[in-house]
Amino acid sequence: MAGRIICFGELLLRFTAPGNERLMQSPRFDVHFGGAEANAGVSLARFGHDVGMVSALPDNPFGHSMSEALRAQGVDTRHVLAGEGRMGIYFLETGAVRRPSRIVYDRANSLFANTRASSYDWASVLNGADWLHLSGITPAVGPEPMRAAQAAVRAAQKANVKVAFDGNYREALWAAWGGSGPSILRDILVHADTAFINERDIALITGKEFSSREEAVAHAFTEFPALTSVACTTRAQEAVSNQTLSGELYTRSGVWKSTPHEMIDVIDRIGGGDAFAAGVLHGVLEGFDPQRTIDFATAAGVIKHSIPGDWNLTTIQEVEEAMSGSGLDVRR
Amino acid sequence: MAGRIICFGELLLRFTAPGNERLMQSPRFDVHFGGAEANAGVSLARFGHDVGMVSALPDNPFGHSMSEALRAQGVDTRHVLAGEGRMGIYFLETGAVRRPSRIVYDRANSLFANTRASSYDWASVLNGADWLHLSGITPAVGPEPMRAAQAAVRAAQKANVKVAFDGNYREALWAAWGGSGPSILRDILVHADTAFINERDIALITGKEFSSREEAVAHAFTEFPALTSVACTTRAQEAVSNQTLSGELYTRSGVWKSTPHEMIDVIDRIGGGDAFAAGVLHGVLEGFDPQRTIDFATAAGVIKHSIPGDWNLTTIQEVEEAMSGSGLDVRR
Amino acid sequence: MAGRIICFGELLLRFTAPGNERLMQSPRFDVHFGGAEANAGVSLARFGHDVGMVSALPDNPFGHSMSEALRAQGVDTRHVLAGEGRMGIYFLETGAVRRPSRIVYDRANSLFANTRASSYDWASVLNGADWLHLSGITPAVGPEPMRAAQAAVRAAQKANVKVAFDGNYREALWAAWGGSGPSILRDILVHADTAFINERDIALITGKEFSSREEAVAHAFTEFPALTSVACTTRAQEAVSNQTLSGELYTRSGVWKSTPHEMIDVIDRIGGGDAFAAGVLHGVLEGFDPQRTIDFATAAGVIKHSIPGDWNLTTIQEVEEAMSGSGLDVRR
Amino acid sequence: MAGRIICFGELLLRFTAPGNERLMQSPRFDVHFGGAEANAGVSLARFGHDVGMVSALPDNPFGHSMSEALRAQGVDTRHVLAGEGRMGIYFLETGAVRRPSRIVYDRANSLFANTRASSYDWASVLNGADWLHLSGITPAVGPEPMRAAQAAVRAAQKANVKVAFDGNYREALWAAWGGSGPSILRDILVHADTAFINERDIALITGKEFSSREEAVAHAFTEFPALTSVACTTRAQEAVSNQTLSGELYTRSGVWKSTPHEMIDVIDRIGGGDAFAAGVLHGVLEGFDPQRTIDFATAAGVIKHSIPGDWNLTTIQEVEEAMSGSGLDVRR
Amino acid sequence: MAGRIICFGELLLRFTAPGNERLMQSPRFDVHFGGAEANAGVSLARFGHDVGMVSALPDNPFGHSMSEALRAQGVDTRHVLAGEGRMGIYFLETGAVRRPSRIVYDRANSLFANTRASSYDWASVLNGADWLHLSGITPAVGPEPMRAAQAAVRAAQKANVKVAFDGNYREALWAAWGGSGPSILRDILVHADTAFINERDIALITGKEFSSREEAVAHAFTEFPALTSVACTTRAQEAVSNQTLSGELYTRSGVWKSTPHEMIDVIDRIGGGDAFAAGVLHGVLEGFDPQRTIDFATAAGVIKHSIPGDWNLTTIQEVEEAMSGSGLDVRR
Amino acid sequence: MAGRIICFGELLLRFTAPGNERLMQSPRFDVHFGGAEANAGVSLARFGHDVGMVSALPDNPFGHSMSEALRAQGVDTRHVLAGEGRMGIYFLETGAVRRPSRIVYDRANSLFANTRASSYDWASVLNGADWLHLSGITPAVGPEPMRAAQAAVRAAQKANVKVAFDGNYREALWAAWGGSGPSILRDILVHADTAFINERDIALITGKEFSSREEAVAHAFTEFPALTSVACTTRAQEAVSNQTLSGELYTRSGVWKSTPHEMIDVIDRIGGGDAFAAGVLHGVLEGFDPQRTIDFATAAGVIKHSIPGDWNLTTIQEVEEAMSGSGLDVRR
Repeated sequence: MAGRIICFGELLLRFTAPGNERLMQSPRFDVHFGGAEANAGVSLARFGHDVGMVSALPDNPFGHSMSEALRAQGVDTRHVLAGEGRMGIYFLETGAVRRPSRIVYDRANSLFANTRASSYDWASVLNGADWLHLSGITPAVGPEPMRAAQAAVRAAQKANVKVAFDGNYREALWAAWGGSGPSILRDILVHADTAFINERDIALITGKEFSSREEAVAHAFTEFPALTSVACTTRAQEAVSNQTLSGELYTRSGVWKSTPHEMIDVIDRIGGGDAFAAGVLHGVLEGFDPQRTIDFATAAGVIKHSIPGDWNLTTIQEVEEAMSGSGLDVRR
Repeated sequence: MAGRIICFGELLLRFTAPGNERLMQSPRFDVHFGGAEANAGVSLARFGHDVGMVSALPDNPFGHSMSEALRAQGVDTRHVLAGEGRMGIYFLETGAVRRPSRIVYDRANSLFANTRASSYDWASVLNGADWLHLSGITPAVGPEPMRAAQAAVRAAQKANVKVAFDGNYREALWAAWGGSGPSILRDILVHADTAFINERDIALITGKEFSSREEAVAHAFTEFPALTSVACTTRAQEAVSNQTLSGELYTRSGVWKSTPHEMIDVIDRIGGGDAFAAGVLHGVLEGFDPQRTIDFATAAGVIKHSIPGDWNLTTIQEVEEAMSGSGLDVRR
Repeated sequence: MAGRIICFGELLLRFTAPGNERLMQSPRFDVHFGGAEANAGVSLARFGHDVGMVSALPDNPFGHSMSEALRAQGVDTRHVLAGEGRMGIYFLETGAVRRPSRIVYDRANSLFANTRASSYDWASVLNGADWLHLSGITPAVGPEPMRAAQAAVRAAQKANVKVAFDGNYREALWAAWGGSGPSILRDILVHADTAFINERDIALITGKEFSSREEAVAHAFTEFPALTSVACTTRAQEAVSNQTLSGELYTRSGVWKSTPHEMIDVIDRIGGGDAFAAGVLHGVLEGFDPQRTIDFATAAGVIKHSIPGDWNLTTIQEVEEAMSGSGLDVRR
Repeated sequence: MAGRIICFGELLLRFTAPGNERLMQSPRFDVHFGGAEANAGVSLARFGHDVGMVSALPDNPFGHSMSEALRAQGVDTRHVLAGEGRMGIYFLETGAVRRPSRIVYDRANSLFANTRASSYDWASVLNGADWLHLSGITPAVGPEPMRAAQAAVRAAQKANVKVAFDGNYREALWAAWGGSGPSILRDILVHADTAFINERDIALITGKEFSSREEAVAHAFTEFPALTSVACTTRAQEAVSNQTLSGELYTRSGVWKSTPHEMIDVIDRIGGGDAFAAGVLHGVLEGFDPQRTIDFATAAGVIKHSIPGDWNLTTIQEVEEAMSGSGLDVRR
Repeated sequence: MAGRIICFGELLLRFTAPGNERLMQSPRFDVHFGGAEANAGVSLARFGHDVGMVSALPDNPFGHSMSEALRAQGVDTRHVLAGEGRMGIYFLETGAVRRPSRIVYDRANSLFANTRASSYDWASVLNGADWLHLSGITPAVGPEPMRAAQAAVRAAQKANVKVAFDGNYREALWAAWGGSGPSILRDILVHADTAFINERDIALITGKEFSSREEAVAHAFTEFPALTSVACTTRAQEAVSNQTLSGELYTRSGVWKSTPHEMIDVIDRIGGGDAFAAGVLHGVLEGFDPQRTIDFATAAGVIKHSIPGDWNLTTIQEVEEAMSGSGLDVRR
Repeated sequence: MAGRIICFGELLLRFTAPGNERLMQSPRFDVHFGGAEANAGVSLARFGHDVGMVSALPDNPFGHSMSEALRAQGVDTRHVLAGEGRMGIYFLETGAVRRPSRIVYDRANSLFANTRASSYDWASVLNGADWLHLSGITPAVGPEPMRAAQAAVRAAQKANVKVAFDGNYREALWAAWGGSGPSILRDILVHADTAFINERDIALITGKEFSSREEAVAHAFTEFPALTSVACTTRAQEAVSNQTLSGELYTRSGVWKSTPHEMIDVIDRIGGGDAFAAGVLHGVLEGFDPQRTIDFATAAGVIKHSIPGDWNLTTIQEVEEAMSGSGLDVRR
């Protein structure tokens, strides 16, 4: 059943060097839109859900075009605040052979980072919502986003809105303003119903060491009683463009695993995790059984790797075809 | 020995989304020319044969540029009719990883579909020709092209012009106007000397079921006494861009098979079958023995997968190098 | 320790057909800069060495932009002569699947080919230099460059400047003016401290036959007493874009081999050998032990295959990461 | 005051040859979105009005992207029907010097043309609307759109929704199906409150001859009692890219004229009339006095000539700056 | 009446910097085809005449694509010789404001320059021809082309084929090999029926000084008794992109002048003279009266200034529209 | 005589929307380099002077490519500091018709703005210099650049290095940190030998009102005894792309004016003032008389308007040709 999901996080411009060129090798950039929560939100809107974005954008051509792009994808932008300031940018250089892709961030001092936590009216924003989705990047952006994330999660709990949390620990962002990442993420995870975290995230947040993913997840279920599901992926990279992706979904009843998907000639790996997260949430919202949920989510993640840009510009039908392993020859 | 081959079929514009983008993801299309019979005809002209195209094109910049492109390739366009109307278009989105390529057709109500069968003067067109080549797409385009295809084949028989027929069954085209595809294709196949069909085509056309390709081809040789050769390919797709192609040539004396060619990083799969068909016809025209014919044809098909666009912009020398497995390093 | 290296050779414009298109398939060329010695020089400058180019360039926008590009890379262009004439061009068509890449040269009658050997003042040029680097292409360009190369090598010997020599035998260039390639290369190799040659080069230059690379190199150490190191690579090509590269470094004490590097989805193979040569020279200049030298050089060569254009636009850090096999996932 | 305007008409893809090239001169097209009523609707939405589009689009990537683009601009697409069929296309070649721009239409047999008039539920569509806007192209597309246009206008009258009508007589479209253009447009004009027509339109629709624009408009006010405003432009073309545009607004009280605007280096003239019409409607909705209305509308039309594509991607502020003749130097 | 015209001259590749960039400012070139006689020949073929090109092209992708492009335009390439060598190139930088466009030639040592005069079999080439067209560039390319041009003109005289000669004096080309340009051009002009020359050409060729164009032409008619027509243009440049062009046609009976055409926003001035010459020859071949001939030719020249590339990709209808001063607004 | 000029200021990336598109209209940006002082410095280096840049750049691909581009132009970058931080960006939308070009800045919090004034060792930097050039933008960027600018000017005075100052008052930059622009600029102007200021700058800096430019300049010479020359331009804009530029040079002996240059089809107006300033400094350095200086400077400014990007990629010869009004037709 289609639900209403509120996504809270920063919206970014992405500037990509053409083809496999180095950054600034030739004088051109291709432009896409990004931001972890928006990436997931666009997927969910394309899967038929009612998605509302909460963020802050400058009242300039960049903010306007970001809003327009979200609206084009069917995402409701009524709760995106407008103001004076800059939009965060990230630059992407697409790797090849054995040279990894590389991101250079230019996101400091963005309008989102500087927007006061009190600017968001969570009671109103969450009215009618089923889920609140945010990632560990949101509180890492700065003290105000951190406070806003905390307020959002508390308001969600109050309003019986479930929380989905995507770990996404970014050391450099926390370090930039001295935020104590692990303890803040812990406070958010306490309220989460569904979390996209793996053994490293759990170790970091809980301050414990684990000998396996299973052990870490088991501990998470113990330490975070609200948690009903934990999902994560395993990625192997034989080469920059040849990878294998598989997904795992843990609930308190057991674990479900997708088959591994070999991904040859990966086009764009950015947003793969967000596409996966959206796939899990879609399964949960639609009431899929866990196996179908993890299969759908992993196939959604796989499809993302074939599409330029951060957004998973796909459809339920295409994800289901990828799940079913239907033929790869030209569709006419 | 170089021969004269008449190719009869619709000419199409192809609009391709840039790189691996989704259709309309960014506001640009790259343009190529297509049409199954023209694709084969261009190959044959590049292999040194005298090729004449029979079709109908609008008297506008699209029709003119299509004619110009054919003439540039050495194809004789004297028998391409000009009129008022539209050219069929197809849109191509190039897949990747596990997302197949996708074609959206916009070819209905084209000038070719609406051109009266009586507009073509087959006696004159076939004068001096050795072969008539057409595919199962031509009669599927509509009742007039169907009648024209039937007239062409009858005229060929009368004029002792051999018929080459490429199965290419397109369910959607037949359904669009209610044509009885199998029985019409059967009437054409009856006159064919050489056919590019596999077990599915034969089953469809004859209305019988077969347990193997060999059995199907054996039946075809029985049911169609004029048939001297049947050629087809086997394609395996490990990924959208990694495929394996092999070719088989059946005559009444036996079967000859190419080695399988692993095709890594396929650039453009469209037109691969037409390139193969042209390779077989080249072998037949040149009097190659069956093994050399199927090796040449399969290598020609493989080369096509490395070239953007529908046309196999290659040379006999390059095909022979691919046959001989000569080195893959840079040619200086 | 950073050294001063003088590179002597022709500078070329490279015009590349877009994507994997055939030459002139669509009306556009992408432009890069090339020339074997400049390619090596740019690598060495990027690795922190003091590199001086010796060549001749027309006093027109092409010569100016070539000089500017070298200066941008930190290469000293004071010894590049300016004059009236043309710059050599080469056209590159990037292959795919089983169609090899193809180069069409248009380099005859260039200003460099026509520049009198006496125009170069080698005593001044080599003043303060540690190494002179040139390839077998330089003397092959014509009688004047041949005389200049001979003069350069003699001047180097006189000035106690070590000579690095990259075999690069180009039959077509020698044939164009009737130069006796093997004997002239022999005269240069006699003075070389380090040579980038394999068994075929050695056989050609010495006029002997060898049953193995080891045997050939052993012979070279015998016949050329000044030689202290011989380095070369082994390249296997499973497909045009999937290759395996390994490197070997021979000294009079033994042989050191890199691990083979599988290179998936090669972007640009041109300049790979020059990148490798520069890597070896960097190891020698920095006093790396032979194993580290060959590992660095081979990794540098591998990185080159991921970068469009002839120049290895990389850093020591990236090469070291490739050596250490650190992860291939996106660097943030 | 912002109003709700319903725009009814066909939505078109526009494929433009790059730069000033001839159609098909090089193998690329740039893509924009068009359609006279949508062009006006996008302007009105950007000026802050609540705009609803009524049309029919195929359920394929072209229909989807058109809807997305309208939503991005803030146009409500709830009343755009989805179905199987094709989208109309037009090809644009941009002229220069003394070679006029040229449009080649490929819009026959579109889904919109084939959509039954009964598919639109006008009572529901017009619920809450202030204005219905349509052009003379809509009924010209075919008998079903003609019936739908007639039904829309009748429903508007019933629901006290004002009608804005843009003449746009297209001989070729009417001829294609034998519609009696003038009498049908007359039936629509009878219901119009505001019309974008000039002396030629009035002569054509009324079957009378006039010696001046003033006389024609005076007659229109007599013959069409519902009409309160008539607006039109005068365009002079000194060269393809140098034009002069002025606007005139007639009411029953008088005529108001803009100053003539010299337009140097016109970028894109398509959609200029739609931008002007939207400007007039904006003035009417906002209650501007007639002089300000015609000044705003003409300036809006002028701005359009500086923007690539059919849509007037501007703002009220920019139009007002153009009205006020504020400086033309770079805005920082 | 359509005639057969033989065009003899070098075929060139043109590489143009994108937009108004300086040469090599960004790493890309757009490619067109050129050569004065081919430019005129393409015009004449598009105007319906039977045009044969005589030249020499390398047997490589550049020669092949040039031939293909000529065939696409309907030019017969049977008499284009193939060989080993290079094709001449010219680089174009498009000026703006008060910075003139600039051409850098790289045409020395081309296959055409090196092709022996005896390689052309003029009796066979001119068989059935009505006209031989060549420019003053052809003999300037080198001694062999000079001899070939002389032989062509003599053979034309013998075969009663009229000669059209376009002055095009290129000092730099003559200087490069020491050819005595004026006297050689004089020998050709002696045989010309129609010449595209102005007072400077006449002064140069005859070694006389003239105080006006009229006087110079009068002298030419005296000195060259075979001459029946002299045509030339007057070009004024208010700015690099704003020019005025008018044409004049002199016969022994009088002079006819076109109206001056103001050309605003010139797109591409190269080939304007060749387009004019082709227009004159078209008028002569069709038997136009002198006024219509000069009007047609000048309008053809004007149209060329709106089209990217050397070739005048237009039609008789478009030229006639430009002659008649029909409207400049969008053609639908 | 060539001199050594030290330019101190921020270096910026410029991202330009393609063609005349609105910012973010299609997903691409073209990249150029900018910064007022660097723009002037590049001109001076191209005119043969020894130019040193003083600035701060991030140690990332953007900083590296900026340094490389300066070195390519012959600018010495030894005194460009490297650090951690961001580079300022500005986005440019190119206007047309009556829509002005528009710049959106994203330059706050750049590494340059945050670099401590004490980081620059002015004694060392100015060693051997003849001139220090800086604009009013440098101190406006923030308190540290302000202090650095003040220190630079004081050090210049001490070292007998002349100061050139370009007014460039940017209200928004001063407002952003509350700097008292006028009084700070006054302190710099006190030390200037040559100033690029007009009546508005002088009024602003001195706090006085003037009835004419002459009066203002006369006052400046009175109030600033060190000042020997004041230069400025007058720009009229008939349309966004049609402008007229003239220059004036005031000394204590009189005023010299250039002829007005009509600039048709302006390609890129950014950097025009910096090109003019560099032209004046070139005249001063070369000892031109005032008339030649202002003619050269204005022609240099005019040429800039024909070249994409901030930098005046021209030569002395081209400027002199523009001065002399030599022909505008294609240079071959």
